Amino acid sequence: MENQFEELKSILAEINDLDSAAAALSWDQQTMMPRGGAQERGRVMGTLHRLSHDRFVSTEVGMLLEQLEPYAGQLDPDSNPRRIIEDAARIYRKQTRVPSEMVVEMSLATSVATQAWQTARQEDDFSLFKPHLDKIFALKRQYAELFAPYEHIYDPLLDDFERGMKTSEVKAIFAQLRPQQVALIQRILDQPPVDDSFLRQPFDAQKQWDFSVSVISRFGYDWNRGRMDKAPHPFSQMIGMGDVRITTRLFPDFFNPMLFGSMHETGHALYSQGHDPALDGTTVAHGASLALHESQSRMWENLVGRSHDFWQYFYPQLCETFPAQLQGVSLESFYRGINKVQPSLIRVEADEATYNLHVMLRLEVELALMEGSLDTADLPEFWNNRMEEFLGVRPPTNREGVLQDIHWSIGLVGYFSTYALGNLVSVQVWERILRDIPELPSQNRQGEFGALLAWLRENIHRHGAKYAPQELVERVTGSRIDPAAYMRYLTAKYGEIYGL
Amino acid sequence: MENQFEELKSILAEINDLDSAAAALSWDQQTMMPRGGAQERGRVMGTLHRLSHDRFVSTEVGMLLEQLEPYAGQLDPDSNPRRIIEDAARIYRKQTRVPSEMVVEMSLATSVATQAWQTARQEDDFSLFKPHLDKIFALKRQYAELFAPYEHIYDPLLDDFERGMKTSEVKAIFAQLRPQQVALIQRILDQPPVDDSFLRQPFDAQKQWDFSVSVISRFGYDWNRGRMDKAPHPFSQMIGMGDVRITTRLFPDFFNPMLFGSMHETGHALYSQGHDPALDGTTVAHGASLALHESQSRMWENLVGRSHDFWQYFYPQLCETFPAQLQGVSLESFYRGINKVQPSLIRVEADEATYNLHVMLRLEVELALMEGSLDTADLPEFWNNRMEEFLGVRPPTNREGVLQDIHWSIGLVGYFSTYALGNLVSVQVWERILRDIPELPSQNRQGEFGALLAWLRENIHRHGAKYAPQELVERVTGSRIDPAAYMRYLTAKYGEIYGL
Repeated sequence: MENQFEELKSILAEINDLDSAAAALSWDQQTMMPRGGAQERGRVMGTLHRLSHDRFVSTEVGMLLEQLEPYAGQLDPDSNPRRIIEDAARIYRKQTRVPSEMVVEMSLATSVATQAWQTARQEDDFSLFKPHLDKIFALKRQYAELFAPYEHIYDPLLDDFERGMKTSEVKAIFAQLRPQQVALIQRILDQPPVDDSFLRQPFDAQKQWDFSVSVISRFGYDWNRGRMDKAPHPFSQMIGMGDVRITTRLFPDFFNPMLFGSMHETGHALYSQGHDPALDGTTVAHGASLALHESQSRMWENLVGRSHDFWQYFYPQLCETFPAQLQGVSLESFYRGINKVQPSLIRVEADEATYNLHVMLRLEVELALMEGSLDTADLPEFWNNRMEEFLGVRPPTNREGVLQDIHWSIGLVGYFSTYALGNLVSVQVWERILRDIPELPSQNRQGEFGALLAWLRENIHRHGAKYAPQELVERVTGSRIDPAAYMRYLTAKYGEIYGL
Repeated sequence: MENQFEELKSILAEINDLDSAAAALSWDQQTMMPRGGAQERGRVMGTLHRLSHDRFVSTEVGMLLEQLEPYAGQLDPDSNPRRIIEDAARIYRKQTRVPSEMVVEMSLATSVATQAWQTARQEDDFSLFKPHLDKIFALKRQYAELFAPYEHIYDPLLDDFERGMKTSEVKAIFAQLRPQQVALIQRILDQPPVDDSFLRQPFDAQKQWDFSVSVISRFGYDWNRGRMDKAPHPFSQMIGMGDVRITTRLFPDFFNPMLFGSMHETGHALYSQGHDPALDGTTVAHGASLALHESQSRMWENLVGRSHDFWQYFYPQLCETFPAQLQGVSLESFYRGINKVQPSLIRVEADEATYNLHVMLRLEVELALMEGSLDTADLPEFWNNRMEEFLGVRPPTNREGVLQDIHWSIGLVGYFSTYALGNLVSVQVWERILRDIPELPSQNRQGEFGALLAWLRENIHRHGAKYAPQELVERVTGSRIDPAAYMRYLTAKYGEIYGL
């Protein structure tokens, strides 16, 4: 079976090469490519994806897996070969269920839908996007039907981003979390508001950049295997284990997006830079799931980067960098300012206390649309009512409401929940790390992150996607995804800040 | 046959997509990629090239061409379909002759040879490179044998870069040119040397960049379909017709590389930006040959950018940009300085009067090595003797002699001549343009290049590689490649500068 396994790995490596090329082109498209390249780039990406897909669903792969799966079943459950074979078989079975006509139809539908969404958003006219949304959800229902029987029609979508996760689990987690978060926010809003006006001043762009670079370098981002560039919508991109890039955006008069954004993307990138090289070229040479990825980005952004410990070390440096802007702003005021809770309309601008509620709203919408219990004609009203119920704010326009996210237009349904799950996992893991490294807070106060990164490498990063996300969370924390830790964290942090 | 032609074009488009991806990755590798990405990038590029090659030599393409070639023969010789089919058939026949083991062997040999060349050059030790050079030329002879019978064993190599060109033609051209160029240089060196010391001063990098941008923008470089970045070895890269990038290098204390280098690369890029969109996705959607490409880069760099006319318009702007550095340097002195003739050891630094002699030396070496009349053990001595004979200078080290160029180490044999041929073609075409646009000199004196670019678009750029290079030169100038125009140009220009 050694030969067959080598053969499988060489095909997976070829698929990985095509995907790596597509990843590099995607990075280029969002950072470097001149406008005139857009049309051809679309074609090239399409060809790379098609060749990669065709290679995966080929008879050759099917026959190899048929021979290899029984063999894998006899191997140590934790061994790389077993996990590599099983994951390849899982993907093969998913991909071979999807007729290529459906792939093409979805690709065409999202291509026009993205255009329509952009126009609809610009003109604040939901009716321009509505027919495309209908089409995409109709296709998503067809897609989900391919995987019948299912517990819930939304399960196959969720599985694409969060392997093995069930709708019922997410609903149960959110049902537990929502009332607690809503209540906490209410108590916060009963307090006098925090002043964060000092964050909105002119901050020299180069100095913002340099300060962020110094922070993420201390985090342990490996510049020999990465680089940072500007992009309108920041992202991190793994081109290969030796090339994991991050992007960021700079506002000349607002400090947060550059600094916290680059910490966030660095969290993703540290994960990708930390996979075991033995997994290279296989389907498990990436993060375990979107929630696990988000747990890493949110950990570095929030649990480290928005902590009081962190700023005890870095705030003096920040004051040296921006003496005029921060004159008279104490460490305490600064810490409170960057942690201000303020229910707002836009998800990507939400603070730690309100963010998950934006996600829960989106899950409700997606479930209702998949179940057929909500007509898209009623969607804007539905959205705005829920915003009022969850956060006490009502979008005055659809642009600030239902039209704010690109996800549905590009065919991402089942994705949003992972943002909130990532928040939960980040704190579950953090509690575990604090038990293993009791000195962590004092290390953070000294700007030392080596032990933290080493722990993450050992317990999470190196495994890549060898383990299913819930399996990994359980291995690491002793329990599956659970909102209790997150609520403990929010309550303690904001209790202290707002004197609750 | 319409259907078969569409089918062929769709396969060629897929091949083109893979090549476009490889082109983008190659650009990235030379400009953006972090060091850690090198190993995987090599694998990814290898996979893309292999898939592209495999697709081209597939039975499917062979069968389509068998049906299409007789049909093409009945079409108008100037029609796109005929040329597209014939060129695809030509490449198919070439590529199917080469066994894939040979491709792999050459790829491995050049991979280690490039490393060896770098070390040999660093340590100035030719013996480290010699065995690799032997290996590469042995493989090149094997390669050439695949195309027997040939007039000369070097012909198949030349044909890879300069379709249809014969060794005997190049030898005849060079034999005519060399004594005239050597004699001219001798007469120049009998004159008092020109002062160009003002070119070597501190020049602010950003100002150099901005000035170059303003010049190449006036040339007509389309920034919507391109961008400029820094690279250690500048190049232009066509990723697609809508995305043609250039690179440049900046020296803080030497003005020429940035300005003339960016003009040169812009010349290449204007060619690539000017192909007829109807050719997109086929094998003729690029320049007709390396010599034709070089004719375009050298035209903008030398015939425009180093002309007295050009600087009548731009010199006042340059003086405004660098008032301190150019104080007291008259337009005449500046013009003479940037055109100084100075026999030197390094090809890439050579001036217009001496450049071709560097190329002729390399052709002699390549011919001798391919014919087997020169042992590589004697190569350094051979090289140094020829340098003395042609240019009156003798390299004190092999680093400044036979080890200076990367070409052989990466398997490029048959390439060098195209640099000199490009110089010749540039002036042949220029003479033709001057007949069609008598106002060209006065337009250049006003910084107007629209008519020039339009002429090149119409007569050269749009055709891509529809016509073989010599065929295109003949269509445009009325004769095949001929050194007479170039000698007229050199004699007039340097006669005036050096008062001969």
